[in-house]
Amino acid sequence: MQTTDKNASRRRVALLLGSENDLPLVQGACTIFNELEIAFEMHILSAHRVSEDTARFAQQAAENGFGVIIAAAGKAAHLAGAVAARTLLPVIGIPLSTSLGGLDALLSTVQMPSGYPVATVAIDGAANAALLAAQILALMDEDLVNRLSSRRDAMAEKVRESDMRLQKSFT
Amino acid sequence: MQTTDKNASRRRVALLLGSENDLPLVQGACTIFNELEIAFEMHILSAHRVSEDTARFAQQAAENGFGVIIAAAGKAAHLAGAVAARTLLPVIGIPLSTSLGGLDALLSTVQMPSGYPVATVAIDGAANAALLAAQILALMDEDLVNRLSSRRDAMAEKVRESDMRLQKSFT
Amino acid sequence: MQTTDKNASRRRVALLLGSENDLPLVQGACTIFNELEIAFEMHILSAHRVSEDTARFAQQAAENGFGVIIAAAGKAAHLAGAVAARTLLPVIGIPLSTSLGGLDALLSTVQMPSGYPVATVAIDGAANAALLAAQILALMDEDLVNRLSSRRDAMAEKVRESDMRLQKSFT
Amino acid sequence: MQTTDKNASRRRVALLLGSENDLPLVQGACTIFNELEIAFEMHILSAHRVSEDTARFAQQAAENGFGVIIAAAGKAAHLAGAVAARTLLPVIGIPLSTSLGGLDALLSTVQMPSGYPVATVAIDGAANAALLAAQILALMDEDLVNRLSSRRDAMAEKVRESDMRLQKSFT
Amino acid sequence: MQTTDKNASRRRVALLLGSENDLPLVQGACTIFNELEIAFEMHILSAHRVSEDTARFAQQAAENGFGVIIAAAGKAAHLAGAVAARTLLPVIGIPLSTSLGGLDALLSTVQMPSGYPVATVAIDGAANAALLAAQILALMDEDLVNRLSSRRDAMAEKVRESDMRLQKSFT
Amino acid sequence: MQTTDKNASRRRVALLLGSENDLPLVQGACTIFNELEIAFEMHILSAHRVSEDTARFAQQAAENGFGVIIAAAGKAAHLAGAVAARTLLPVIGIPLSTSLGGLDALLSTVQMPSGYPVATVAIDGAANAALLAAQILALMDEDLVNRLSSRRDAMAEKVRESDMRLQKSFT
Amino acid sequence: MQTTDKNASRRRVALLLGSENDLPLVQGACTIFNELEIAFEMHILSAHRVSEDTARFAQQAAENGFGVIIAAAGKAAHLAGAVAARTLLPVIGIPLSTSLGGLDALLSTVQMPSGYPVATVAIDGAANAALLAAQILALMDEDLVNRLSSRRDAMAEKVRESDMRLQKSFT
Amino acid sequence: MQTTDKNASRRRVALLLGSENDLPLVQGACTIFNELEIAFEMHILSAHRVSEDTARFAQQAAENGFGVIIAAAGKAAHLAGAVAARTLLPVIGIPLSTSLGGLDALLSTVQMPSGYPVATVAIDGAANAALLAAQILALMDEDLVNRLSSRRDAMAEKVRESDMRLQKSFT
Repeated sequence: MQTTDKNASRRRVALLLGSENDLPLVQGACTIFNELEIAFEMHILSAHRVSEDTARFAQQAAENGFGVIIAAAGKAAHLAGAVAARTLLPVIGIPLSTSLGGLDALLSTVQMPSGYPVATVAIDGAANAALLAAQILALMDEDLVNRLSSRRDAMAEKVRESDMRLQKSFT
Repeated sequence: MQTTDKNASRRRVALLLGSENDLPLVQGACTIFNELEIAFEMHILSAHRVSEDTARFAQQAAENGFGVIIAAAGKAAHLAGAVAARTLLPVIGIPLSTSLGGLDALLSTVQMPSGYPVATVAIDGAANAALLAAQILALMDEDLVNRLSSRRDAMAEKVRESDMRLQKSFT
Repeated sequence: MQTTDKNASRRRVALLLGSENDLPLVQGACTIFNELEIAFEMHILSAHRVSEDTARFAQQAAENGFGVIIAAAGKAAHLAGAVAARTLLPVIGIPLSTSLGGLDALLSTVQMPSGYPVATVAIDGAANAALLAAQILALMDEDLVNRLSSRRDAMAEKVRESDMRLQKSFT
Repeated sequence: MQTTDKNASRRRVALLLGSENDLPLVQGACTIFNELEIAFEMHILSAHRVSEDTARFAQQAAENGFGVIIAAAGKAAHLAGAVAARTLLPVIGIPLSTSLGGLDALLSTVQMPSGYPVATVAIDGAANAALLAAQILALMDEDLVNRLSSRRDAMAEKVRESDMRLQKSFT
Repeated sequence: MQTTDKNASRRRVALLLGSENDLPLVQGACTIFNELEIAFEMHILSAHRVSEDTARFAQQAAENGFGVIIAAAGKAAHLAGAVAARTLLPVIGIPLSTSLGGLDALLSTVQMPSGYPVATVAIDGAANAALLAAQILALMDEDLVNRLSSRRDAMAEKVRESDMRLQKSFT
Repeated sequence: MQTTDKNASRRRVALLLGSENDLPLVQGACTIFNELEIAFEMHILSAHRVSEDTARFAQQAAENGFGVIIAAAGKAAHLAGAVAARTLLPVIGIPLSTSLGGLDALLSTVQMPSGYPVATVAIDGAANAALLAAQILALMDEDLVNRLSSRRDAMAEKVRESDMRLQKSFT
Repeated sequence: MQTTDKNASRRRVALLLGSENDLPLVQGACTIFNELEIAFEMHILSAHRVSEDTARFAQQAAENGFGVIIAAAGKAAHLAGAVAARTLLPVIGIPLSTSLGGLDALLSTVQMPSGYPVATVAIDGAANAALLAAQILALMDEDLVNRLSSRRDAMAEKVRESDMRLQKSFT
Repeated sequence: MQTTDKNASRRRVALLLGSENDLPLVQGACTIFNELEIAFEMHILSAHRVSEDTARFAQQAAENGFGVIIAAAGKAAHLAGAVAARTLLPVIGIPLSTSLGGLDALLSTVQMPSGYPVATVAIDGAANAALLAAQILALMDEDLVNRLSSRRDAMAEKVRESDMRLQKSFT
């Protein structure tokens, strides 16, 4: 299957989604990738509608230079599992809240049978999926560790600033 | 894909399950098939562990003489959906209650995306899956209609007898 | 009960719903039937409000030339079950999401007692109910197999086109 | 339909259940009826297995001298609703916890559509169903009011006694 | 406690709700009462905010000429239970869907401990609560039986008319 | 209502439960009270069975020297709420898992209407209820702060010891 | 850790929330604090984004003059628990309904492991969190008892007035 | 924080659990690690009981040579989140089913706020957590890819063998 090439740190992330309609729901992931300078590709694929294309994509993902695959799907969300069954790359699942508040997609994504894990993030948690992919790639990329670290510092700073604004508003 | 052969009424049912451990959970289906003289095959298959075998089985099921496919699976139950994506035969899903009382398997089986229905029966409802398969095949088999009809009459009779026993126990 | 007439392949589908208000919720089924050239009738019936009309409809459905019955209902959705108790035709249930996200309708439809299966599709899954009915009728109608197959090819093609649009938007 | 006979206070309660297996689950109701000297009949009936017997029973219940009907059922519990659709007598539903902790039976019993109420009690709440029936009949039977009142006094006394036992155990 | 007066059939229904904001949610009950010519009173009461007023109301309800009490409440809905603990009149609970789709109110209303039943109707089921009250009072009022019966006939007629409209729209 | 006596720190805790059967479920609380030398009383009370005793207990709790009240109840758990409506002392609720995994008791306890908070702890969380009571009383009792602090140190120590045991088992 | 200073009754309440966006969700608490003349501070903190600031705040809260800490958070709501692990002050948790109707936040807040209670109030129950804090502080402040008592009287009066308005509207 | 050392492929996995009692629940992970020759350490840690030890462990995990951290916890499962807030290593969460079928632990683990992903696997899915860790490390270790690949082949073979056994048992 996949090979551990020397440029592992340059591996791209694949972000798969079931339809164009889901694009706004994964926008948060794209923003993170651009911010962290992580190469990624986005593809419309489906475990059911184009099952063979999906199988082929998963089987060739490692040799095509991908390092992590993210799959977003709603309802009986099989996409992440179908990909996970056909690659040894880490697969991250984003359950989309299209019905029942997303409980259906969450359970369909996370409750994978033994042998085929899907790293599941929060319902509609596209940004976290991207960050998890980044944290995995950062194991092979010290620069990315630094960018992630700066991002966290900035987030903490923002919390502190909003707290200071709040304190001022009271005085 | 499938062809409508002249002997449609002789089509067999395929009963797929993920592991030998699930055999007791689908025993109710086998009993029904034997009782109604419906030819069936049982196979251990898995959407994840042997995804290609499963795909091949689904793609060839119609031409191999199957008329209905039943798939039983628990947790993030993808088996029925994976089969449904690759055949135009009616696919029946049995959610197995391996965790969360089976709610995970139920939602993973029934909440299929538009285009790929899975005819879902009750959690652990193997007997009903078999009866549903029988009712479908009975559209092409008047004798089977009669056997199903007799079976219902017998069930009703049993209810009436148990009521009579109850009435006697009070007097 | 029902008889296996020679023109089984010409059997119509009955689409039952509890009130005129539910018409928009099953529009997806009508579209599929028209697209696939499947004859169907739609009826307002209710397990509770016109229980005898419903019983009579179910009992006579087979001899009246129906091959599959679809029933859509919300809340404590008994319509599909009430019909299934009175016919040996395959009965498909569509749980409508009128409250609790449709969990009540889903459980009331799918958790049928042994002996009386209802082939349940996704919450508000009218299109899939129609396709399941079509797949059942296609067992007796090679032309319908072809139409279903073309429809799937078209769906796959649409996914591929949307993926291509996406790729272009990135370059 | 039903007639308000002069001896309304002598009306019996009907306790319906789907199978002999459910007898232990409704034992609590029988105990209450005997304790309160309420005439009752118990019947095995089923909305699906003997739908016509059930319909007939419900339609004739009022003229047959019943005042309240209790129906116990599990899973997609339609029995209470099927009865409620065919009588104007008050119908009490007991959801039985045969799966999903009884959530399926609770929702199938309580979420009745407008026009056809089922007075639902707790999951496996047979004793409360009997007491509710008694409280309804007590509207026409002052003696029954007194018996119910004494029963409540006895329950309160038991709580006070157990509290006193507890206080003694500490000293 | 309550006494079985000769004019039992003239007993009024009490409809209790926790705040003026809930008035629109129980409008369906008022409509039914007016339609069926059932005398009723509506009161703002609360198990927590005016617990003693509520206790007093419940304790005196029977002697004040009420025959049935309906209580509507949301969230941790204790109103029906608090009333049921202090009267032997039948108490009907309407769970209001103020949060979690009403699941919290449903469970808080229906899962009453042994000894103190609350006849629970559907979430937001005010109309059904009124009809259940009417069916209980009808045990002592033949005219009310007739009015209820006519109402059901009218509902059935409406279903049939809507079905006819639907059939015409197809031809 | 309550008065802030000078010996506030000597206030006792009341631990209320619905029946003797629940004693084993609150044993964890008694252990904590004894360990932390907190005076407490345990009482069998019920929002429904002895509603007036319960009301009286709650109304007099402050002047009777109680500082915190804990109420444990299952199903439609109203005990904590009924007490909270009648005292200004902090009331802690323990939802007991008698059915539906305790979800019913949790929602009935925690979802209190505005104005009447119940400090809810985990399902079957008797030990935590006792600790919460202790932390409240410790606001007025420096010695109790020290005892609580020692208890936490001991818990941390136990975790560290178990970790050391684990490390040894690997070498 | 904390010390029981002589002016315990003058302790402030800390109200922590994860982001400025949550300010409207806790407005109800601020209103209560102002109404009851309870000193409080509000801070933006986060168990994850500024975990060390949060830890420091919790560890120093007692010596900084706080008596009760309230933490509001949504989704996998860890803020209250993270604070509770680092102080012996009573910690109150408000689950915010940002997804799944708040069920996720409720369970993440209330189901704390043994040793570290969080006094959980209703989903989005900011007002009740403030009242619970007030009831705790009132153990050391007789004036606050009186203000709380007056507030309850006013609430009861409002219910009675709304009931009177309702009665008038009927006559 | 962490540094991308040259021997990234030799990084160990840390498996954290809250108490010795949870050891049997993560046995499946240890088996996988031994089978795949992955170096790992197991530690008893707790987000609440030893919050500072846990914080320190997380902060130093990268420089101490860990590549992935797995945290198993039940109920309001904060362990994985508390670790994820303090490291940029990928953190995998195993929700343990100690109550409510594990739904509480699942939601507390997976619904992490934006910025701090936890890669969540199935309830009690220790084996899958280990495999996910392995798949992440395999990005830097071609030999591990091969071992994972062989393991999958063996799993597939086992399914095929069990299917053959089943076929034989029918003939």
